[in-house]
Amino acid sequence: MHGLELRSLATSDGQLRLSLEDATPGAPAADELVVRVEAAPINPSDLGLLIGPADMATARAEGTPEQPVVVADIPRQRMGAIRDRLDQSLAVGNEGAGTVVEAGDNVRHFLGRKVGMLGGGMYAQLRRLPARDCIVLPEGVDVADGASMFVNPLTALGFTETMKADGHRAIVHTAAASNLGQMLNRICIKDGIGLVNIVRSQAQVDLLRAIGARHIVDSTSPGFPAELARAIRDTGATIAFDAIGGGTLAGQILQAMEASADRGAGYSPYGSNARKQVHVYGSLDTGPTVLNRTFGFTWSVGGWLLSPFLQKVGREVAARMRQRVADELTTTFASRYTRTISLRDALQLDILRGYERKATGEKYLIDPSR
Amino acid sequence: MHGLELRSLATSDGQLRLSLEDATPGAPAADELVVRVEAAPINPSDLGLLIGPADMATARAEGTPEQPVVVADIPRQRMGAIRDRLDQSLAVGNEGAGTVVEAGDNVRHFLGRKVGMLGGGMYAQLRRLPARDCIVLPEGVDVADGASMFVNPLTALGFTETMKADGHRAIVHTAAASNLGQMLNRICIKDGIGLVNIVRSQAQVDLLRAIGARHIVDSTSPGFPAELARAIRDTGATIAFDAIGGGTLAGQILQAMEASADRGAGYSPYGSNARKQVHVYGSLDTGPTVLNRTFGFTWSVGGWLLSPFLQKVGREVAARMRQRVADELTTTFASRYTRTISLRDALQLDILRGYERKATGEKYLIDPSR
Repeated sequence: MHGLELRSLATSDGQLRLSLEDATPGAPAADELVVRVEAAPINPSDLGLLIGPADMATARAEGTPEQPVVVADIPRQRMGAIRDRLDQSLAVGNEGAGTVVEAGDNVRHFLGRKVGMLGGGMYAQLRRLPARDCIVLPEGVDVADGASMFVNPLTALGFTETMKADGHRAIVHTAAASNLGQMLNRICIKDGIGLVNIVRSQAQVDLLRAIGARHIVDSTSPGFPAELARAIRDTGATIAFDAIGGGTLAGQILQAMEASADRGAGYSPYGSNARKQVHVYGSLDTGPTVLNRTFGFTWSVGGWLLSPFLQKVGREVAARMRQRVADELTTTFASRYTRTISLRDALQLDILRGYERKATGEKYLIDPSR
Repeated sequence: MHGLELRSLATSDGQLRLSLEDATPGAPAADELVVRVEAAPINPSDLGLLIGPADMATARAEGTPEQPVVVADIPRQRMGAIRDRLDQSLAVGNEGAGTVVEAGDNVRHFLGRKVGMLGGGMYAQLRRLPARDCIVLPEGVDVADGASMFVNPLTALGFTETMKADGHRAIVHTAAASNLGQMLNRICIKDGIGLVNIVRSQAQVDLLRAIGARHIVDSTSPGFPAELARAIRDTGATIAFDAIGGGTLAGQILQAMEASADRGAGYSPYGSNARKQVHVYGSLDTGPTVLNRTFGFTWSVGGWLLSPFLQKVGREVAARMRQRVADELTTTFASRYTRTISLRDALQLDILRGYERKATGEKYLIDPSR
């Protein structure tokens, strides 16, 4: 058996090269499966590996219609950050779903079943991987539903778990109309957790209102600072998850939290003692984070990633989170895709520019079997 | 009994007013002392309350030579941050030392003893306070030595305690030639802890070299980024304490830490899994903190304050820290003052401009008994 897989190569002479290679998964070991991949989402977290630091304004098509290749330039000042991946052809795609077509001796009961998978290299027609990285999809669940059962669901649940573990009681979320943001709303509504949604347009306000979100603030509104402060006071949110990273928003959130904090013992030039935390989990704006420190000294801004979080909480909590995702896969954790494309489509310049934009509300699914 | 005390008043019409008021401490309760204050340092942490957000370029002298008053304007955009202190006359001065002149029934054994004190309002000729906030100075220890036995010593020890509690093994410190920075060097040399000192001039390099500091980098050097990365690699520092706050330095420290981190499992677009932490404990630069996020997602920047730290570690650790300060007061924790002034001197414009500058290496002591 063999099939196409998408590869991303950054060369030491400063070029990014995306191509489809013919690959043979090889025979499965005793505990392994070979899966025909039928659905794999393009998450923002996949684009880091796929496109990395290349300047996509320079992207050009090379190769043939059958063997499309996209080449783009990598600005010299960004080369240092990727020195560990230079000249290595990398497989891409964190998660996916498909049908088991071969199975090792210990896991033959998987044969013919549809599974969701986590483990990288999912933008491929065939993927060999350990059976423990696969979850059999419940009856009636489509591969499109099962393709996104790890990254977004576990991240959204990771936010509420982090909130509880650190003793906060409500959450602020930015870029809140995203697929992940909608999921987080469904979790918070179901679990009775206060959630302040920060969005960037009236259309996104309407979208979230329609799914039942209560606290929505539009950062393009002239009254944004006061509206944000009011929503934070109403919910008591002291922890935020920020997909944007760059700009002044993280600091504005901290300032709004400080404004509604209990001063307790009266004035201190160091501000209130109320803890205020922003976790940056994305980089939609790759520019610098600018913190105008008008919120005292009891604050923290830092990175948040799913894998270290899952390692920290341990197997039991992680297993409980996965079970909840499986139980509520077509309700709380449902993903909506705006477009399904083939592997070859993924290397068409116009389509590539579409998913590379990371527009809120747009979500692409790759079906490598097309 | 009565005596002068320095008061700071921010009015709701936008003026800061510093004055000397005649005050009566009142008779001590059973567990209280009245102390004649003979030494109180001007720490950067005192200036927040004393001067607050006033624009000292507008400062002017009012009052009389006997009753000096300084008035300065507070920029309108800074008024919001101090609304909790408006129109309240505040006593100033976190710590000091002096001679016990009255004592309550339960603490009469303090009478006539020299004590170090923590508790605010030390820029005064007389201070009434609970005996538990006083430490009797050892024989041969002068009030000038005892006046600074809390803020800087416990802060410097707090840095190494935080380092150990959070599993780091070496420290980066900025504005490292300060009184506090010199103290931190003496602690780290004695305890065998790696310390990267970041300073802003060759004179400060020389100063720290002379007291035995090993790793010193000058942020004004053209080779600063590479020199910082080398010092961080040599020490293995993954935690920093930053007195500056504003500008790009915190981010540069994180980038240098990331550059020397163990990549372990190879390339990830999210950077290494090595924890990287900057604690901002001062605001020598009140401008925005600008983080160019070129250091992956495993990082944190946040405020650090002594009082919450002491509360968090609990009585036992705090008591151990205080005991060490008392034991090493004239060696590890010795403070040097460049000028001793009276309360009236503190309200002379030229002198005020001197201590308000917070120049590294300069440290003022107020002797209210002068």
